[in-house]
Formats: sequence, C-alpha cells, structure tokens
Amino acid sequence: MKLLVVGSVAFDAIETPFGKTDKILGGAATYISIASSILGIESGIVSVVGGDFPQSNLDMLTNRGINIEGIEIIKEGKTFFWSGKYHNDLNSRDTLVTEVNVLENFDPKIPESMQDAEILLLGNLHPGVQLSVLEKMRNRPKLIILDTMNFWMDTAMDLLQQMIGKTDVISINDEEARQLSGEYSLVKAAQKIHKMGPKFVIIKKGEHGALLFHEGKVFAIPALPLEDVFDPTGAGDTFAGGFASYLARKKDFSFETMKSALTVGSAMASFTVEKFGTQRLEEVTESEMLARIQSFKELTTFEVNV
Amino acid sequence: MKLLVVGSVAFDAIETPFGKTDKILGGAATYISIASSILGIESGIVSVVGGDFPQSNLDMLTNRGINIEGIEIIKEGKTFFWSGKYHNDLNSRDTLVTEVNVLENFDPKIPESMQDAEILLLGNLHPGVQLSVLEKMRNRPKLIILDTMNFWMDTAMDLLQQMIGKTDVISINDEEARQLSGEYSLVKAAQKIHKMGPKFVIIKKGEHGALLFHEGKVFAIPALPLEDVFDPTGAGDTFAGGFASYLARKKDFSFETMKSALTVGSAMASFTVEKFGTQRLEEVTESEMLARIQSFKELTTFEVNV
Repeated sequence: MKLLVVGSVAFDAIETPFGKTDKILGGAATYISIASSILGIESGIVSVVGGDFPQSNLDMLTNRGINIEGIEIIKEGKTFFWSGKYHNDLNSRDTLVTEVNVLENFDPKIPESMQDAEILLLGNLHPGVQLSVLEKMRNRPKLIILDTMNFWMDTAMDLLQQMIGKTDVISINDEEARQLSGEYSLVKAAQKIHKMGPKFVIIKKGEHGALLFHEGKVFAIPALPLEDVFDPTGAGDTFAGGFASYLARKKDFSFETMKSALTVGSAMASFTVEKFGTQRLEEVTESEMLARIQSFKELTTFEVNV
Repeated sequence: MKLLVVGSVAFDAIETPFGKTDKILGGAATYISIASSILGIESGIVSVVGGDFPQSNLDMLTNRGINIEGIEIIKEGKTFFWSGKYHNDLNSRDTLVTEVNVLENFDPKIPESMQDAEILLLGNLHPGVQLSVLEKMRNRPKLIILDTMNFWMDTAMDLLQQMIGKTDVISINDEEARQLSGEYSLVKAAQKIHKMGPKFVIIKKGEHGALLFHEGKVFAIPALPLEDVFDPTGAGDTFAGGFASYLARKKDFSFETMKSALTVGSAMASFTVEKFGTQRLEEVTESEMLARIQSFKELTTFEVNV
C-alpha cells in the first residue's frame, strides 16, 4: 500500500541538556517518510520548502525511495524554521523561534503519482489545509490518520472539528486529548473523541508510552526505558510514520493490526530520540529495527497462571 | 509460603473530588494483607494500634485468615491517623493531619507463629524500625521486600541506606527513585539503586504503571486505564501485597515470576482505587481477580510480524 504524507519539511535548531545544533533537517513529513522507508513502504510527501532548502536533503529523501514530486519549492521563499530549547527533564521545552515562512500560504498539491495512495497521514498543520487535501484527492483514501496539536484547538477549533469528523485514526498526546474532550480521565476523553468521528484514538504519553482505544477496547504500549533521551524532537512523527507504514505493509486496519502498528511506531520512535534530529533514524537498518521490536516484546510479555 | 507484613494499621480520613470519608480503616499492612487473603496466602501482620481501634476491624482481618497475633494493642494509646485531600487530577494530594500516636514508639514484635515466614514485606515505616525487624527474625527470610518513601530519604538516609543494603526487592515511585539515586533517567536510577543492594528494583509510576529492573533487563506493565480513579489511597500497598503474594503462591523468585507478580499487583491495585479505602478490595472475589488479570493480558498483548 502507498502512503501519502502531508506535513512540514523544515529546519530545526535544537538545544538539549546534551548539546545544541545549528539549522538541521526537520519537519513532520521528513520523520514520517524516513520511518516509512525503513519499513519498505512507498511514501510520497506533499509539502513546501523555500529556495534555501538544500538539494542534498531532497536527494537523501529520493535515495530512500521517497516520492518528493509533491514537495513544492518556492525559490524566493524561505523554509519553515523552528528553534527550541528542552528543559532538563526533556519532557517540556520552550520555543525560541518560529518562522512559518513558505508554510504560511501552503497550498498542497497532490501529484498524480500519489492520487491512488490508500493511506493518508496528515501531519500537524492548519486544519483548513488538512481539509483541503481531502478535497483534492480524487477518491477518499481507505484510511485517514490525523495528527494535530493544542495550538489548533486554541485558534481553529471549528475547522479542526470538521477535520476530526472525517478522520479514521487520530493521534494526539494526553494533554491535547484532555483539552479536546474537556475530560481528565483518558478513558472518558477517548469516548468523547470517538463521538467526534475517529473509530481509533491514539493517545501518546511520551516516556510513558501510548494508548489505543477502539470500540470500548484499549491497548497500552509502554515506551522503551532509555538511559538517555538525547533529543525528543520528531519522536511523535516517527511514531506516526512507523504506525502508518506497518498498516500499509499488512494491508489491514483491524484493531489487532493497529496494536502491532503501535508497537512498531514506538520502536521506531525509540531510535529517533537517541541522537539529534533525523540523524539516528537515517542510520537504522532493518535488522536493528527487528531487534528493537523484539525488545518491546521482552519489555511487555508476561505469563500469569494464578 | 507465609508472608510476614510489617507496617501501619491505621485510620484515614480521605477527601477526593468525588466525596469524603470520616475516619476509616487504613494503613499499609491492612491493604497488603487483604490483597494476600484474596490470593489465598497466609499472611501475618506486625503492627501497633491504640485502644480506639475497633474490634470489628480486627475481626474482619481474622475472618479473612490473616494472622493478627503481631498486632499490639496499646489500650491507653491512639491509633495512627492520617487525613488528606486529593487534588482534582488525583495524582497529588495535601496532607491535612498526621497523628503518629502509637506508631511513634513502635517496637515490632514477631509472633512465634510468623518466625518461619519465607517472605518479609516491610511497609513504609522508619528505616530504623524496619532494620529492627530483621534483627528480631531468627532466620533471614528468603525474600525481603522493602517499601519506603522520600520522607525517610530526607530524615533518616543513613539508616535507610543500611536497610536498602539488606533488601532483595525495593518498591518505590518514580520521584523517590530519582531522589534516592540523583538520576533523572529511571534506567540510570535503577542501575544506581541496584548498586545499593537490591537485585530487583520496582519503580511505580501511578497511572502510568510500573517498571521492574533486574540484571540489565527491564519489564514494563501499564496501569489499567480507568474511567475514574475514585480514591488512590492504598493503591501502592495493594500493589505490593498482590506482588508478594503471587511470589508466595508460586514459591519462586525468578525474574519471569516477578513479571507476573507485578501484573497481579497492578490488577489488585486497580480494584482499590474504585472506592474509598479498603471497601472495594474487601469485596473482590477470586473470579473478579482472574477476570481483571485477563484484562491486563488483553491490554498488553500484541503480535508483530514485520
């Protein structure tokens, strides 16, 4: 199955307790597509960058088999840039700079070669832009996965509600689930979000893992306990990319397959946090990925015989 | 296997967003022993109460098969009393009243009938009192499980370090693990705590579940996502009681058995939080317990075939 990814391709400058970077490659669509390429899935990015975006980054994506026909280059514009500094616990961060640049007037264009994508993963973007992608697709994809954030709940709630209503799987963090639903209990929050549309609700809890809710059932996957989280940037996007790509690989959207997909997403995300930016993810081999998934099996498997 | 439990038998007055109680039965040893009785384990409590402690509470324990020979009654004294108010998120609380009362000069006495206990579970108490229990046992129990809290790290660290040095399994929460080790990463914290003595380190994360570390291996169990946590009081003690009792039932202290024990402890704790105090735990039947353990299997089981 083909995966269409709509999201940012960007520059980040990151500071953590372990060091800092200059402008490096970032953006949700970047992490998602690299994760997909590790899983051998044909993905295509729809995004926009400026004339300052290096050809070498585009080549890296192409060399991984990622379809970049949908990345528009606005020569006279500048690429989206985010800079942030993580606190000592790496669970919170301050945004130092956000330059929206060419993303301000992003008008997504779906290349003909991706019109037949069966899975659409909408990375965190203005919900109006996310809705416009649906209108531009000739057929509704078989599965629509939505990532969003609290910023759009504060600034574009009506459009966001419309978008959520057209979504099959929503992926948000615990605080966002609470804000979106007005419920503190994540079980109740998921129930309310189901009523907004999505049959599958993923709630991400960072170092505490993630929950998947579906038709009154729930699945929990812990995060892999790590000695150090070096840089959390892109972990959520990598998770979404691993999740969607496993579904694409299995060509199945059942709850059982989604549980496995959640695990694969978590395993992929555990690589991303080991180095700055996409650095570690770009190095991951298939055998490393399989070993990491096995670590999750060992982390979570038990037999009880009371 | 017999389980010796040393810890408080007390009164609590609890306020949560859902209501409040007068003085009700509480105390670590109470929760631990009730959990043990559900699992059919012969446990004995060593504790102290005042003349104000109702015979009906003692009868309830006896009727469950719990050995209360080691509960000293100081007629002229008053029972330990704690009162607290939980915040809206139920993850934090304010202590309103702590009356230490007869626990102030607690001098634990091990009844002859419990000298042959193979598992010793030391509930949260002054580490000097915990150490004195070891001196009073004719033989070292096969397994010593220690619960403690940050209060003793602040006020009696030397004695606590001695006690930890004699412990096989330590059970503490994430903040306590960080304070005890000086490490933010829970993996690094567990490594440092291993060096203090315990071969098994359990780190409790409340609504996010628990981790078990042993010889470089790690196991994670999520908490069961609940619609409402009604009253978290006693959840950690119930967890410890379920954990120790499963080991007693299996007569085995391997990492594999401890993983299962952690799951049983989590399942038991998920009952405790459903009502005030010990109310829900006292109602739990064996079939309910087995069903709850099955829920944990469903919550955590996945198959990945990449």
